Amino acid sequence: MQYYVSSEELPTVDQLNDVSKFLDTTDLISEENRYLTEIPVSKLRNLYFSGETNVERIALAYFHRVALAQQLVNCITEVRFEEALDEAKKQDCYFRKTGDLCGPLHGVIISLKDNIRVTGLSTSMGFAALAEQLEEHDSVIVKLLKDLGGIIICKSNTSSGMMYSETTNELWGRTLNPYNRKYLNNGGSSGGEGAIAALGGSCFGVGSDIGGSVRHPAGLNNVYSIKPSFGRIPCFGTASGQQGQESVRTVYGLLSHHLENVQYGFKAIVDSQPYRLYDCSCIPLKYKPYHIAERKLIVGFLDQDGLTSATPPVLRGLGIVKKAVKDAGHYTIDWPATYLKEIREAIYPFYEANGFKGILKIIEKTNEPVDKMLSKWFPKARDMPVSELWQLQSKRTTLAQQYLDLWNTHCDHGRIDAIIMPVSPFPACLKDGVVPLPCTAIWNGLDYSASTFPVTRCEISVDGPILKTQYVSELDKKVHQTYSDNLTKFEGGPVALQVVCNRLEEEKCLELTKYISSLLR
Amino acid sequence: MQYYVSSEELPTVDQLNDVSKFLDTTDLISEENRYLTEIPVSKLRNLYFSGETNVERIALAYFHRVALAQQLVNCITEVRFEEALDEAKKQDCYFRKTGDLCGPLHGVIISLKDNIRVTGLSTSMGFAALAEQLEEHDSVIVKLLKDLGGIIICKSNTSSGMMYSETTNELWGRTLNPYNRKYLNNGGSSGGEGAIAALGGSCFGVGSDIGGSVRHPAGLNNVYSIKPSFGRIPCFGTASGQQGQESVRTVYGLLSHHLENVQYGFKAIVDSQPYRLYDCSCIPLKYKPYHIAERKLIVGFLDQDGLTSATPPVLRGLGIVKKAVKDAGHYTIDWPATYLKEIREAIYPFYEANGFKGILKIIEKTNEPVDKMLSKWFPKARDMPVSELWQLQSKRTTLAQQYLDLWNTHCDHGRIDAIIMPVSPFPACLKDGVVPLPCTAIWNGLDYSASTFPVTRCEISVDGPILKTQYVSELDKKVHQTYSDNLTKFEGGPVALQVVCNRLEEEKCLELTKYISSLLR
Repeated sequence: MQYYVSSEELPTVDQLNDVSKFLDTTDLISEENRYLTEIPVSKLRNLYFSGETNVERIALAYFHRVALAQQLVNCITEVRFEEALDEAKKQDCYFRKTGDLCGPLHGVIISLKDNIRVTGLSTSMGFAALAEQLEEHDSVIVKLLKDLGGIIICKSNTSSGMMYSETTNELWGRTLNPYNRKYLNNGGSSGGEGAIAALGGSCFGVGSDIGGSVRHPAGLNNVYSIKPSFGRIPCFGTASGQQGQESVRTVYGLLSHHLENVQYGFKAIVDSQPYRLYDCSCIPLKYKPYHIAERKLIVGFLDQDGLTSATPPVLRGLGIVKKAVKDAGHYTIDWPATYLKEIREAIYPFYEANGFKGILKIIEKTNEPVDKMLSKWFPKARDMPVSELWQLQSKRTTLAQQYLDLWNTHCDHGRIDAIIMPVSPFPACLKDGVVPLPCTAIWNGLDYSASTFPVTRCEISVDGPILKTQYVSELDKKVHQTYSDNLTKFEGGPVALQVVCNRLEEEKCLELTKYISSLLR
Repeated sequence: MQYYVSSEELPTVDQLNDVSKFLDTTDLISEENRYLTEIPVSKLRNLYFSGETNVERIALAYFHRVALAQQLVNCITEVRFEEALDEAKKQDCYFRKTGDLCGPLHGVIISLKDNIRVTGLSTSMGFAALAEQLEEHDSVIVKLLKDLGGIIICKSNTSSGMMYSETTNELWGRTLNPYNRKYLNNGGSSGGEGAIAALGGSCFGVGSDIGGSVRHPAGLNNVYSIKPSFGRIPCFGTASGQQGQESVRTVYGLLSHHLENVQYGFKAIVDSQPYRLYDCSCIPLKYKPYHIAERKLIVGFLDQDGLTSATPPVLRGLGIVKKAVKDAGHYTIDWPATYLKEIREAIYPFYEANGFKGILKIIEKTNEPVDKMLSKWFPKARDMPVSELWQLQSKRTTLAQQYLDLWNTHCDHGRIDAIIMPVSPFPACLKDGVVPLPCTAIWNGLDYSASTFPVTRCEISVDGPILKTQYVSELDKKVHQTYSDNLTKFEGGPVALQVVCNRLEEEKCLELTKYISSLLR
């Protein structure tokens, strides 16, 4: 079967800048395949159970869809269609024999960020030096997903070494933003997964997040995602440019255009007791269903992160959500930006505390060209003495303790349930125009759980520049200036927001996201 | 009331070397006070409920007992008898008014290792420079214990900066081993708590453990203890010579001559949901009662740690326990020393990775004399570059992952339940004769839960030197040589063992300890 099509059959960027709905309407995909790749996992499982479809057919439908996505926005790094097809056939055979599905992820089609190791594929992270080294082992999360029945079909693009929030690198090039391929940045570092989720190329994707790398591309692609606290989803055996960095833990999260798929995948992973058999860093916390309380929720709203503040479309998005939450009878409070600047200053040095030695070692192997962002950082790089690292770690823990106190006591009505805030000050940033991401990174520093959910899109007719007299920082001024100066380029840019809950409150975070999303309809 | 007595009323070391039973028999303590300070917490609470005694009386009885302990073995650094008496009276008043106890630790008498900060007391950790700085805030664990009704009566001695496993320092001097004051080391760094527990000076004590600092003194004082995995007992706001070190986490644990008190205290702390209100590093894991399974237990036995091996009395202790477990119908297997050397080599550099800069800064303030152990280490100290730290962290995580696999698959009967192994190769070490402690430190490196329980005492008539032909290491040879050369000095030395369970299995670890201890009677 031919998964890809001739490039002539696809619109160029000038012909169709916004391809976010292209696969939902094009004749290149049959009606049946469109339906099969649009339904959430629960419906898919019903079809499997009833025998109305089988994994082979679903896999083929997704191969086609994700291949078209690749042709539209350049999101894929590696494919394993043949292996996936074999696995699919085996599952169908199992079902025919037993009448049962082979696990909670039976026939669930999954895509993975490139840094997750899969046997037989390379783990290049955007570096030529790694492009031809084929893995001999699966990362633990891959082993787990396979054990549960997940069908892994491809891996997806990231920034070089997952080091910044824009998905472009010298090896694979740039992943485009499906909503605005010409001007807008696709987010990062899990930008490949962001685009695949936006275009429905898998049931869910798995990405890593150390400063926002799941939530930022999820937000800039207007899809749902969860960044859990450390210890719920296995991380062992994945690749990183900064291996061994633990001051801010890398966590793995899920992305999908169906929130249900994110919840389903997260539950399946947690239910498998990963701490016991899979990953020594996982915590023996069972999946704890959360039910929206009868009582009023207490939801904080925040339009800045101590470094930049929301541009007009993002501000409008916050207003939409705040009104919906308030109208539903809950407490909506203005959440203060307290400690955010201090947390940022404590945690940002961690990301480069080894002077990028890990990444430099990779690059030196081939002397390959270094991309723009890394080139800017390398000259300032410094292998920090441990005494200094310990001071920063101590400072970060003190701030986390103070933040817990703020969380518990700031609101007169009681401990807050969640904070809703931007993922990015922009409705997706311009290409090469990404800003540092305290919006998301702060919650990595505190190890809180956080999700994203789509709210609206930029409409420049209503989202005209605002006349600000006060800025959070010089960068904030630049952000708003950039928005004013490039207004038309932001048309159609996605506006997604974060729901931030306390540490290890993933179930609550996802259920609140579902509830709040339901209020927007 | 006079808590201390004239030194003439107490035996000198030459008159009575072993004072472990002295307070159980001396006329210096009234029969009633002896009873009140000997009963476990459950009985104490019954007496409180029935009104047969009150907190004031219990506090006074403990003041007297712990003061005598201090006179016998020099275990205390700070006292707060007056404040404790006030708190006791308030609790009695509360009980008279309400007929109820004020919390799960109502009238439970607690001692704390010196590095735990208590308002109004100093936190010297053995350094003169800190001896006169009085704290203005409680550590979080102190706030929690007070909130639950705990009555904190004193703080106890440690090694300088809690940096080694022998409780002696230039400020407070040496804490003696109650079982053999003349020759044997009291263990460390929570040696003050070890001695207080052995002599019944509090219901339970709280100590910190980063390489064995709870279990080693607990073992050398033949008492029960638990070293939990990180995240169950609050640690925020305590003092450390190596603040900010996170590669091996400092955890807080409990010590007592009653296992029941350790279990009770641990449950009370966990039940208080410390993650929610007290400490940002705690995990939302509820207390999960563990019931000894109907099935056969699988228990591994190990007589070495990759660096040293058990001397005869410790080997005899292991034999006693192994026989008891086997006779009770369980699987007893020889557990391999696999990975232990590698884990030790990966984690030992963490303890000094900042070149001791934190401690040196304290010492420089007064130019006070530096004790023997630190003096040996300082010249070799090196402020490690972060790139090197990350490599070690990566190595340690890989070993932890491999160890989980070993734990799950080594035994044909299935995943093992626990490992039983020595705390120390010696039945308490000689003074100034402590050896490095991989026996205990390995489990810090893996963040496993581990307890101690008393088994026997050295009897040189049956524990004669063994003729070994093979040694684990050069140090092992020296250990056995030391034992042979100093045989008589070890007479009466405590032999306690560890029960090691997997990560975050504290409830299971304690229940197994209870069960196994019950088999020894």
